Amino acid sequence: MPRYKVIFDTDPGVDDAMALRFLTRRPEFDLLAITTVHGNLDVDTVTRNALWLADWMGLAAPVARGAATPLDRPAGTGAPHVHGANGIGGLTLPQRMARAPDPRPAWQVIVDLVRAYPGEITLIAVGPLTNLALALRHDPAIAGLLAGVSIMGGAFGTRGHAGNMTPVAEANILADPEAADAVLTAAWPVTLLGLDVTQQVVMDAAYLDRLGARGGTDGAFLRAVSRFYQDFHERSRGLAGIFAHDSLAVINVMAPGLFTRRHGPVRVVCGGVADGQTIQKPRGALCPPSPAWDPYPSQSVAVDVDTAAVLALYADTFLA
Amino acid sequence: MPRYKVIFDTDPGVDDAMALRFLTRRPEFDLLAITTVHGNLDVDTVTRNALWLADWMGLAAPVARGAATPLDRPAGTGAPHVHGANGIGGLTLPQRMARAPDPRPAWQVIVDLVRAYPGEITLIAVGPLTNLALALRHDPAIAGLLAGVSIMGGAFGTRGHAGNMTPVAEANILADPEAADAVLTAAWPVTLLGLDVTQQVVMDAAYLDRLGARGGTDGAFLRAVSRFYQDFHERSRGLAGIFAHDSLAVINVMAPGLFTRRHGPVRVVCGGVADGQTIQKPRGALCPPSPAWDPYPSQSVAVDVDTAAVLALYADTFLA
Repeated sequence: MPRYKVIFDTDPGVDDAMALRFLTRRPEFDLLAITTVHGNLDVDTVTRNALWLADWMGLAAPVARGAATPLDRPAGTGAPHVHGANGIGGLTLPQRMARAPDPRPAWQVIVDLVRAYPGEITLIAVGPLTNLALALRHDPAIAGLLAGVSIMGGAFGTRGHAGNMTPVAEANILADPEAADAVLTAAWPVTLLGLDVTQQVVMDAAYLDRLGARGGTDGAFLRAVSRFYQDFHERSRGLAGIFAHDSLAVINVMAPGLFTRRHGPVRVVCGGVADGQTIQKPRGALCPPSPAWDPYPSQSVAVDVDTAAVLALYADTFLA
Repeated sequence: MPRYKVIFDTDPGVDDAMALRFLTRRPEFDLLAITTVHGNLDVDTVTRNALWLADWMGLAAPVARGAATPLDRPAGTGAPHVHGANGIGGLTLPQRMARAPDPRPAWQVIVDLVRAYPGEITLIAVGPLTNLALALRHDPAIAGLLAGVSIMGGAFGTRGHAGNMTPVAEANILADPEAADAVLTAAWPVTLLGLDVTQQVVMDAAYLDRLGARGGTDGAFLRAVSRFYQDFHERSRGLAGIFAHDSLAVINVMAPGLFTRRHGPVRVVCGGVADGQTIQKPRGALCPPSPAWDPYPSQSVAVDVDTAAVLALYADTFLA
């Protein structure tokens, strides 16, 4: 019987697709909805991808289209060089989608579900945080009604892992810093899986090949969808593999013990050279009172990860 | 024969005084001027302290009063809780100063000396960077005429050493971020000695007691001037000793091999929650082109230090 009711907020996206397949293969999860958001590509493209993924995976959960732009800024250009021009690594999709999106906007689906299952739902957010900020804006009280919020985003530099978009900014947060600041300062229990941990978990070519060869239909999908993404990592970083990124926000929910955490309020820099940087004031930090941090709730930032256990958990889900 | 012509830009300040005494005891240095700047306390107070220090130490170098306020902001409140109400750890100073300041403002003295000794001077700056920014503003070409600029300031978080004023900002830089950004993006060869290294070098109570007992008149001065400062470190950090801070900017000039460096452009955040944060884009950083960093000259940031060697060098200067 599933233990975690979850909403998956996503901009698929190769690692989004890999995280979603992991989530939907695990018996621990009851997926109540997929909500989409601008990010890796425009919201129309990622919504089409989400619909296709939901159909291909045979999911009962509705797919709701979310924000097309950040809260207070024009839409970014996305990352077709990372995820392919179609956002899904160049996989060939059917011309017509078998499914239609839910008629409600993503924020409304989030609010409705949280109200329907107070205290039970964990939000897993692996794209820009616009939908979550809009849900909070429309119904601030939902902050007190979540079991948790597990977010792939941010970069805290705790292990030399700085930003992947600027020296300090990570892509999901930089795509909507104002939304991220609203989400991270709200009184709900957030865990951030940032580059500090997601860049530690590398699925190398041999690992992906093994998934492809021995993981059945799903394994073949994971191998195929990740080829373009792997090429990007090789070109840009000399990495013969991929960062697991979004899957860690899923794994954090079912296996929180695989992460080491640091606690304290988190703010997001909005504007200027550090735009999109996430900054935590760790509990016990030896600096004077900080009016920009001290009034806000403590959140949890993952600063270390049991890489071997994460890689084994992910692979075993498909090889079993 | 001295090898380094230097200007000492300072806001004494306990660690400033300790750095200045070290500098003036070392035969390697030819001190051409002391320039003062708002910071640890108001500029009138720190100028009085500098005049007294110069007189007490019998220095020939002129003392020039510098900026009373940051470039674009009102003056801060200083740190009497760190350095004592008189900025010099509560030492009793004479009612009247035996010396008067140079009639020129600090920036003018810097420009005049750099023009008089092109290519020969190293600026050692251990306070807010307002005077250096004003010198650059009045005569931008001096950037090409310095042997080097050695600055105590900044926090890069490379070893978990975050800010001492906010989670990311160090006091000297936060006291005038706009000036610091101008100074660090100018085409002169800067080394930054930030909290990453200065908080590694702790002069503990036994070390200071030894200086006091065996260092003659100067040792007695160092022990006396540092008591209040030590109390602050104990109260705020549980540290039975003091951070060496400003002395490292002096030691960097004569013994650069005691530091490990990281190279790349440095920017300073101006405004917002990260106000005063220093951010380097290290050479070879794996992030996309960064228009806020890439156009600027590479500077040197100290990221590690031979603590034992630094402590020995400082103490031996007084115990010899």
